[in-house]
Amino acid sequence: MPIITLTTDFGLADGYVGTMRGVILSIAPEVTLVDLSHQIPAQNVRAGAFVLYQAVPFFPPETLHVAVVDPGVGSQRRALAVRTSQGLFIAPDNGVLSYVLATADVYEAVSLTNPAYQLPQVSTTFHGRDVFAPAAAHLATGVPLEELGPRAINLVRLPFPQPETTPSEDLITHVMHIDRFGNLILDVTADQVREETILELKECKIEGLSRTFADVAPGELLAYVGSSRDHVEIAVRDGDAACELGVNAGDEVRIRKTP
Amino acid sequence: MPIITLTTDFGLADGYVGTMRGVILSIAPEVTLVDLSHQIPAQNVRAGAFVLYQAVPFFPPETLHVAVVDPGVGSQRRALAVRTSQGLFIAPDNGVLSYVLATADVYEAVSLTNPAYQLPQVSTTFHGRDVFAPAAAHLATGVPLEELGPRAINLVRLPFPQPETTPSEDLITHVMHIDRFGNLILDVTADQVREETILELKECKIEGLSRTFADVAPGELLAYVGSSRDHVEIAVRDGDAACELGVNAGDEVRIRKTP
Amino acid sequence: MPIITLTTDFGLADGYVGTMRGVILSIAPEVTLVDLSHQIPAQNVRAGAFVLYQAVPFFPPETLHVAVVDPGVGSQRRALAVRTSQGLFIAPDNGVLSYVLATADVYEAVSLTNPAYQLPQVSTTFHGRDVFAPAAAHLATGVPLEELGPRAINLVRLPFPQPETTPSEDLITHVMHIDRFGNLILDVTADQVREETILELKECKIEGLSRTFADVAPGELLAYVGSSRDHVEIAVRDGDAACELGVNAGDEVRIRKTP
Repeated sequence: MPIITLTTDFGLADGYVGTMRGVILSIAPEVTLVDLSHQIPAQNVRAGAFVLYQAVPFFPPETLHVAVVDPGVGSQRRALAVRTSQGLFIAPDNGVLSYVLATADVYEAVSLTNPAYQLPQVSTTFHGRDVFAPAAAHLATGVPLEELGPRAINLVRLPFPQPETTPSEDLITHVMHIDRFGNLILDVTADQVREETILELKECKIEGLSRTFADVAPGELLAYVGSSRDHVEIAVRDGDAACELGVNAGDEVRIRKTP
Repeated sequence: MPIITLTTDFGLADGYVGTMRGVILSIAPEVTLVDLSHQIPAQNVRAGAFVLYQAVPFFPPETLHVAVVDPGVGSQRRALAVRTSQGLFIAPDNGVLSYVLATADVYEAVSLTNPAYQLPQVSTTFHGRDVFAPAAAHLATGVPLEELGPRAINLVRLPFPQPETTPSEDLITHVMHIDRFGNLILDVTADQVREETILELKECKIEGLSRTFADVAPGELLAYVGSSRDHVEIAVRDGDAACELGVNAGDEVRIRKTP
Repeated sequence: MPIITLTTDFGLADGYVGTMRGVILSIAPEVTLVDLSHQIPAQNVRAGAFVLYQAVPFFPPETLHVAVVDPGVGSQRRALAVRTSQGLFIAPDNGVLSYVLATADVYEAVSLTNPAYQLPQVSTTFHGRDVFAPAAAHLATGVPLEELGPRAINLVRLPFPQPETTPSEDLITHVMHIDRFGNLILDVTADQVREETILELKECKIEGLSRTFADVAPGELLAYVGSSRDHVEIAVRDGDAACELGVNAGDEVRIRKTP
């Protein structure tokens, strides 16, 4: 039986995630459930997209990934199941799959409309439990994708964050994600940056890319090729860069050639 | 092998919950462990009762639910196992099972006194590990309930929160639970409220029940039939009602007929 | 298939832990994964050591315990697998295993250098995913320990916290760990303390050891033999001793004989 991963903004204090697990295990008792994160900031679709982007390559391609960051629950937004080269995704059609779909071959998508694969009573506010969890569980037991509803096209896709190049050939990059250590993950990958560069963030300048934290003294800033799909990251060794520099997601980092 | 769910106020930072999992898997390696919540506010028995009430209907009836919110650990309070139509519950006798017992048929309860089904050394402060976890694991392996101890009667039951009706036929309801989104779950269910009503909470008035969040503009207050057993909820679309209105659990919401 | 436990300082908000689970299940789909804690304070090796010390005795001895609190990731610090009488441990060589190694028979340790048991691409910042998770998974599938790399000796061991005895035969003990309830776990065990003692912490005096919380009135301080390997603990009944007294890990508690 396949793995089903869960990514939500439900937090772990309420019973919402536990309830989804109950629904899934009632239908597919043999699946292995894995949490990616339930602490996506409330209704932050891009943050959910990032976690999937980061984690999905490390799962077997037959894995089912359920992602419920769903500010439009109960509205006309579609509920989707999407089969790709990197796994099968079950999520609202609001862009939360954008980053993984941008890096996988997309084979087939359906709209989850068949009531036979939903809970008997579907609430207007908790489709994680009533629509997405049962869809994933039924797919895990072998129900064919096309049974769940009609083919869906024109999926919502948020633009993948990209650095811009200025006339003077500087790269304007952005903080794409801040992790729990306060490390800043930029929307630029290793192959786009040369080692002889200067990164400018707020009042700070960082010269070139280090290999790892231990290459600088404790408390010092460094930039390096991070562990998430070769994105460049900025950190303070043994510190919290986001906190110490007052950085937010979306903030700009300018990368200049060393003069 | 059945599912065992865990609900505690232990948090996830310490190794307490992990230790309970170790005890259970040492006795019953084949069970499926599911967390409902470990972030019940410390020693808040009613909050634990609510999470069980919310989640239990979505699990198979052969599930074992362990709930350890246990301010009286080590005192004379009993440790219980209770077989019901909705599952088997293992918990201290302090009311944490009140809401599920109020909505299930209770068949049989025993007091967990048989040392053969406890850890060899029972501490005075961590019965989650020493009493409740091994009891659940042994029951999962097929030990009959009555082996665990003598029959228990007169279980502690906290009154189920209920709205009151005023002489003018207003309903005085209360905030029963606040979830991680700041949504307010009231102690009143859909069948008790008509759509042509006004809900009054602090300085705010909400007219009628909406269907879902998207029916109002972002930032606006709404009331709707929530996903938890048809309780009425109050939320701010894309916001945090509890925070924005300064609401606490127990606060009053008056429901008037539309004049 | 054995249990693999995970202990990290990665938090649960990012996908880091989920990614490690994906790596493990890709290699060893049948293992049972158990979280001990992912909320070890960032890079706090001793806090990680404590959680292992607390939880490990409650797992079967064939369990594999992965512990990644790893400020030196990417530097010359070794990555280890250590077979002991209490389980097999996979962790950086930085002392995070100190407390469990101090209380187990250590049979054999290797340095995790064989690239056949690492991910194809090893980052410089996330060995939890690239080195430790695959090592644990391969060991779980039956790969012999000595396949993973050469024998390792002289493991880093942090001194186990110990109380000191003053010339006047007072014991100077220290707060070894503060748990989520604000209970203070001291570096002194039951057998080192007599019941007729006075514990002095900041301005407060506690007379003798109580049996459990319920032995004192709500809001009162007590000392008692806790659930973690018989260490003495200090708590406020129905309160948070660490908060109310302003105590930090490492703070001193003096234990005097009753005069």
